[in-house]
Amino acid sequence: MPKQTAQGEFGRVAILGLGLMGASLAMALRASGAARTVAGYDAAPGVAARARADGAIDSAAASPAAVVAGADLVVLAVPVLAMRELLAAIAPHVAPGALVTDLGSTKAAIVAWAEELLSDPRSFAGGHPMTGRERSGVAAAEPQLYQGCVWCLTPGPRTSAATLARLAALVERLGAQPTVLDPDQHDAAVAAVSHLPLLAATALALTASARPDWPTAQSLAADGFRDTTRVASGDPRMARDICLSNAQPILDCLDAYLATLRSLRDAVAARDAAVEETFATARQARDAWLASGRER
Amino acid sequence: MPKQTAQGEFGRVAILGLGLMGASLAMALRASGAARTVAGYDAAPGVAARARADGAIDSAAASPAAVVAGADLVVLAVPVLAMRELLAAIAPHVAPGALVTDLGSTKAAIVAWAEELLSDPRSFAGGHPMTGRERSGVAAAEPQLYQGCVWCLTPGPRTSAATLARLAALVERLGAQPTVLDPDQHDAAVAAVSHLPLLAATALALTASARPDWPTAQSLAADGFRDTTRVASGDPRMARDICLSNAQPILDCLDAYLATLRSLRDAVAARDAAVEETFATARQARDAWLASGRER
Repeated sequence: MPKQTAQGEFGRVAILGLGLMGASLAMALRASGAARTVAGYDAAPGVAARARADGAIDSAAASPAAVVAGADLVVLAVPVLAMRELLAAIAPHVAPGALVTDLGSTKAAIVAWAEELLSDPRSFAGGHPMTGRERSGVAAAEPQLYQGCVWCLTPGPRTSAATLARLAALVERLGAQPTVLDPDQHDAAVAAVSHLPLLAATALALTASARPDWPTAQSLAADGFRDTTRVASGDPRMARDICLSNAQPILDCLDAYLATLRSLRDAVAARDAAVEETFATARQARDAWLASGRER
Repeated sequence: MPKQTAQGEFGRVAILGLGLMGASLAMALRASGAARTVAGYDAAPGVAARARADGAIDSAAASPAAVVAGADLVVLAVPVLAMRELLAAIAPHVAPGALVTDLGSTKAAIVAWAEELLSDPRSFAGGHPMTGRERSGVAAAEPQLYQGCVWCLTPGPRTSAATLARLAALVERLGAQPTVLDPDQHDAAVAAVSHLPLLAATALALTASARPDWPTAQSLAADGFRDTTRVASGDPRMARDICLSNAQPILDCLDAYLATLRSLRDAVAARDAAVEETFATARQARDAWLASGRER
């Protein structure tokens, strides 16, 4: 069994998937001293070598089996729909007692696959750091990505309390805030505050850019357009996997959003001055949210 | 007739409305040397005195008539639907030859009112600097607000070429980029890149905060939610006036947006992996827009 060191410290960490999230985690683990060595694997040719050359990881492995061998912490950092196959591939090679977690954007499906496929599901807990950038890939990675963010931990039915505690200690060590949530609760909440904004931003970019007057309009687009559409510049594959793995909660949110927009449309069509109160309600809700947080 | 000085320079400037836009303009005019003195008026009690105490303006006037007396540049910086009454109030007092412009978010209605009410519409041109902040009021004002922004100039049918040239010179003097547009063209374009994002952001804030699980969801909301909803924290009165004065272009945009969202909804409901291409198209459109601009 791999030796565990101090709270939130690990000897050999394996990271599978070296995009923005995985490579940034590798950097953060090394910078914080939470890992003695970080081995990385990525299915795309050349990515692990690039991550090693950039100093994000200590060593590049050629297969999922090779990277998890001897690791006491295994982190899956691939798009959600690639998780199942990867869990099946590593299952026979994960060292007994090694902590397994992931960074996927939706949790119910991943937690179910881990329960089904890992030989010791007690040592698995799902994870989702609530951070990101609109750029993707190892080139966009940064060791500060996880500083200060909320990091959801979603235990499955068999996750042990010790597993959850080890993972929480690691998250704190990285400067983030662990928050334990049921996977379904997590998926419903992020559908509202993350996936719906992604779809809304995507639809905005599509609607504006499809206009015949886009060449003029785009020269007038400023900060408001930039910020409202920012998340539409994210990784399309990740966005697809979010939609496919969290469809029902997203549909519920989209239906509520469409209803809200239709009622705003009615107010505009009726030239109803009371629309001011609707804007005031939205501002109040957003400002209360801002005030409830730490610096955002 | 008020004496004109160098290109883009004015002796006495009158600013009516000392919110974020008007007070920032006062500061910018003084900081750039484009105005020798700036007189301010605001209908809300105490606002002009506060702006004077903060050093945003040189003098506070007690009425629209008093502030425009002797001014060679008059700038209306009030919500769109307050413009008509203000134009009627100042019309008898504007000095002959004085340049009159405004900072309103929509242009067709304002340009028509100016044509109708001002005694010399040749000296009027509409203006709309494509900048803003989500905070409002004189307390949020900053002299750098207009640096680098696109500033639309919308002449009416009788605006003289000299008026347009004087206004363009002033805009350049303030570090912004003048862009001449027909008022209707302007209103259609900003409906797409500014008003639609405002409605989309408002509906997002309303939809998320109306959920029973909002107390949980709001603790997970991060940068994506913050940016996508940022413009929903703007002034509700300004938002109302935008809706009421630009209803038809906004309805056209909302209908296109609803159709785009419904087609995204169909793809999610069908668990259609081809939704990845839709995300890729949106990203490409946004990234091309970013690349087309200067720093955004």
